[in-house]
Amino acid sequence: MAAPNDEEGAVGPRCHHRSTAMLDVPFLPFCAFLGTLGVLCVAMVGTWCQHWRGGFSLDGSSRTFNWHPVLMVTGLVVLYGAAALVYRIPNTWSGPKLPWKVLHGSLALGAFVLTVLGLAAVFCFHNSQGTPNMYSLHSWMGLGTVLLFSCQWAAGFGAFLLPWAPTWLRALYKPIHVFFGSTILLLSVASCVSGINEKLFFSLKNGTMQYKLLPAEAVFANTLGLLILIFGVLVVAALARPSWKRPDSDSPDSRQ
Amino acid sequence: MAAPNDEEGAVGPRCHHRSTAMLDVPFLPFCAFLGTLGVLCVAMVGTWCQHWRGGFSLDGSSRTFNWHPVLMVTGLVVLYGAAALVYRIPNTWSGPKLPWKVLHGSLALGAFVLTVLGLAAVFCFHNSQGTPNMYSLHSWMGLGTVLLFSCQWAAGFGAFLLPWAPTWLRALYKPIHVFFGSTILLLSVASCVSGINEKLFFSLKNGTMQYKLLPAEAVFANTLGLLILIFGVLVVAALARPSWKRPDSDSPDSRQ
Repeated sequence: MAAPNDEEGAVGPRCHHRSTAMLDVPFLPFCAFLGTLGVLCVAMVGTWCQHWRGGFSLDGSSRTFNWHPVLMVTGLVVLYGAAALVYRIPNTWSGPKLPWKVLHGSLALGAFVLTVLGLAAVFCFHNSQGTPNMYSLHSWMGLGTVLLFSCQWAAGFGAFLLPWAPTWLRALYKPIHVFFGSTILLLSVASCVSGINEKLFFSLKNGTMQYKLLPAEAVFANTLGLLILIFGVLVVAALARPSWKRPDSDSPDSRQ
Repeated sequence: MAAPNDEEGAVGPRCHHRSTAMLDVPFLPFCAFLGTLGVLCVAMVGTWCQHWRGGFSLDGSSRTFNWHPVLMVTGLVVLYGAAALVYRIPNTWSGPKLPWKVLHGSLALGAFVLTVLGLAAVFCFHNSQGTPNMYSLHSWMGLGTVLLFSCQWAAGFGAFLLPWAPTWLRALYKPIHVFFGSTILLLSVASCVSGINEKLFFSLKNGTMQYKLLPAEAVFANTLGLLILIFGVLVVAALARPSWKRPDSDSPDSRQ
C-alpha cells in the first residue's frame, strides 16, 4: 500500500532523525548476510539436485536437466543480485568509476552466461526426451525474463560503458535501467519459485513420495523457494534504501 | 542492475529536464490503462474458470475451487493495486486527508475480505476431497503473502487511522508500510503465477488436452499469467515514480 499522510506531516527533522536512526542498519553487515543467504540458496539447490534428483551429467537425461535449476538460481538470482549491489558499496562513491562499472557489467555478464547455460540444459533435456519446449507459464515467464535481461545488459553496455553515448541519452536511460534492474530480479525470483513448484509436482507423484504427503524433499525444496524469495526481496530493498545510495543520487542526473 | 555512474554525472538540470520530459506520462491516463488491464485480468480468470473449468458452485467440488483463482486475482492483485495507488491521485494532495485514508484502508480491507474468501474456497475444496492443505510451495508462499497482508493492514490501521499513535511511531513505520505495500503486491503476483502454472499441470494431463501440446486453454491461461505480471510491475513502477508522489513526499516525515 502507498504512503498514508496525515498528522505525520507535522513530524519535524529531529523526530525523523530519531526514527531513521532506529531503523539504521549498516550496509556491509547486511551485504554479508545477503551473501551468506545467496550461498545458502546455491548450496541448497545443488543439494536438492544431487541428493534427491540423481546428480548431474551431460547425457540429455534428467541429470542434464538438473543443471537448469542450479544455473538459474546461481546466475539469474544470486550473481545478478551481487551485480546489482555493486554501486551500493561505499568505496564506489569516490575515485574513478570505470573499474566499478566494469565490475558491475562483468558480474552481470557472468550471470547472463550461467543463465544461457541453464536454458541450454533444459532445452537439451527436452529435445533428447521428445518433450516440447516453451509450453508452460513458467517457461514463458522465464524466457521473457532472460530476454529482458539480455536487452538490459546490451543497452547498459552501449549507454554506460561505450564512450560515445551522448549525456542526454544516458540521463534518459538511467532511471529505466535502474527500474528494470530490480524488475528483472523479481521476475527471476518468480520464475524460480514457479519452476521449483512445477518440478516438485513432476517428480513427487508416485507411491509414498507424493508431494501432497510433504516428504523431506518437498519441505527442503519449498524452504529453498522461500529463501530465494527472501533473497530477492532483500536485494531490492537494499537497492531502494535511500541512505545506501550514492550521496549524489538525488542530483538531477541520477534521480529515478 | 543498480545505477551506473560516470560521465552522466556531468549532466545539468536543463539536460535532465529535457530527458524527463521525454519520459513524461500523465498519471490519470496511465491509471485508466492500469484499470483496464486489471479488469481484463479479472474477466480472463473468470472466463478461464467458467469456460474451461466447469464454472462455479459452493458444493466442495472443483467448481468450488474455481472461486479461488477468481477471488485471489480480484482481491490480492487488482483491488489491492487500486488501494495502493490512492495516494498517487493528485486530488489527494490537498484538502483533508482523512477521507483518502479511509478510502485507502477500505479498498485494502475489501481486497483482504476477497482474499480470505479465496482461501476458504481452496480449503473447502481440499477438505471435501480429502486432499491435504498447505503442502506446495505455491501454498506456502500464498499463505505467507496473506499473513503479511493482514499484518500490514492491522499495523496501517493502528498507526495511521487510529488517532493515538505517536508521531515518532508513524514516522518510523511509514517507510516500512510503503516498502511492504509494494513487496506484498509482488509476492501476490508471484503466488498467482505459480498457482496458474500448477493448476494447468493438474488439469491438462489427459489425451489430446495435455499442457505440453499447448491447447487453447493453456495459451489463454499463460497469457493471463503474463498480464497479471505486467499489471503488478506497472503498479509498482507507478508507486516508485517520483513525479507521481505527493509534492511533499521528500519531506523528512515521508522519505522512504
